Amino acid sequence: MKKGLMIVMSAPSGCGKGAMLEKILKEGNFFYSVSATTRAPRQGEVDGVNYRFMSREQFEGLIEKDEMLEYAEFCGNYYGTPRDAVVSALENGKDAILEIEVQGAAKIREKCPDAVFVFILPPSLSTLRHRLEKRGTETEEVINRRIAQAGKEIPEAAKYDYIIVNDDLDAAVEDFLAVVRAAKNEAGRNAGLIDEILKN
Amino acid sequence: MKKGLMIVMSAPSGCGKGAMLEKILKEGNFFYSVSATTRAPRQGEVDGVNYRFMSREQFEGLIEKDEMLEYAEFCGNYYGTPRDAVVSALENGKDAILEIEVQGAAKIREKCPDAVFVFILPPSLSTLRHRLEKRGTETEEVINRRIAQAGKEIPEAAKYDYIIVNDDLDAAVEDFLAVVRAAKNEAGRNAGLIDEILKN
Repeated sequence: MKKGLMIVMSAPSGCGKGAMLEKILKEGNFFYSVSATTRAPRQGEVDGVNYRFMSREQFEGLIEKDEMLEYAEFCGNYYGTPRDAVVSALENGKDAILEIEVQGAAKIREKCPDAVFVFILPPSLSTLRHRLEKRGTETEEVINRRIAQAGKEIPEAAKYDYIIVNDDLDAAVEDFLAVVRAAKNEAGRNAGLIDEILKN
Repeated sequence: MKKGLMIVMSAPSGCGKGAMLEKILKEGNFFYSVSATTRAPRQGEVDGVNYRFMSREQFEGLIEKDEMLEYAEFCGNYYGTPRDAVVSALENGKDAILEIEVQGAAKIREKCPDAVFVFILPPSLSTLRHRLEKRGTETEEVINRRIAQAGKEIPEAAKYDYIIVNDDLDAAVEDFLAVVRAAKNEAGRNAGLIDEILKN
C-alpha cells in the first residue's frame, strides 16, 4: 500500500481553519491527528476527540521515548503530537492532517522533511479583525492581542510550502484538496518512482 | 487582473500527452501555446492551429528581437515558442500551457523562473512499448528508437517541479488540474501576497 502524506497545517486564530477542516475531513482519505495534553478536560470535552488527555508522567514518558513529534509547555501544561497514531495512519495509506502552531510546525519540519506544510491566511488583517468582532465572543483587548499575534505569525507563512487565503470557504477547501493531490506529484517526493519506471 | 500561470509540459512520445491535453483544454481557463516553425505545412495542417508557419527570415527576426522563449533547429527547420501570444494570454489571466521537449524546457526555466514544470511519465517502459505497439502505426525499429529516446528523457523528470504518471487518463488529467491549482498556492510564488495581507 502506498504510504499517506503528512500534512502540517497552521493558521492564525480566526482564519476559519475549523470550518475548513470540517469540510476537508468529509473528503479524501484523511486522518486527523488529535493532540495530547496534560491539562484537565473541560466540560463537554471528550478524550480522543478534543484531546488525548494524559498524566504528566505518561506525557514525559512519551517525550523520553521520542514518541512526541513535537510538544510545548503552556501555562504549566504539556501539549503535543503523539507519533504512534500518525505513523499508523500513514502506513494505512491515509493522509494525516496535523494542525499545529508555527513553532511546533518548525520542529516537525526537522523530524519529517517529507511532510507538506500549508499555512492558512486571512484575506487581510482588517478582515481578520472584522471576523473576530462579528463573533462577539471576545473583548476588544483579546481581539487586539489576537491581531497582534496574527501579525507575528503571518510572516512565517513564507517558510511553508503552500499558502491558502481563506476568503471564500469552498474555494479554500478546494485549494487544500488540490495542494494535497499535487504534493503527491512533486518530483522531490517521487525520486524512487523515476528509477522504477525505467527498470520496468 | 491576476496574471495567469505559465505551465511547461514535457513527455516522452507515447505517454498520452495529446489525449490529456484534449481533456485539460476543456477545463479551466487555459491558453495552448502553438509552436512556430519554418517547415512547410503538411496536408491538412492549419496555420495557427498545428503550427504558426513562417519564413526563415521572419523566424530569425523574432530570434534577434528575443521574441522566442526557446527555439531549436531540427533537420534544417526552426521550431520555437513565440513570446507574444504567451505573454498576452498570461496578462489576460489565462494559464498558458507550453508543450516543449526537455532541452527547450530547460531554456524556458532560465527565462521564466516563475513557470511550473510538469513531466508526464508512462507507468513503465514496458507499458510505453506496449502502447506504441498497439497503435500499429510504427515499425519495430521506430518503436525501439522511441523507447531508447524515452529512456534518455525520463531521468530529466527529476528536474521538473511535478511529475504525473499517466496510467489512468482521467486521474492524470485530475492530477494536472490539481497541480495547476496548487502551484498558484506555492509560497514561493506568493511572496508579495503576505506583505499585502499584513498591510491591509
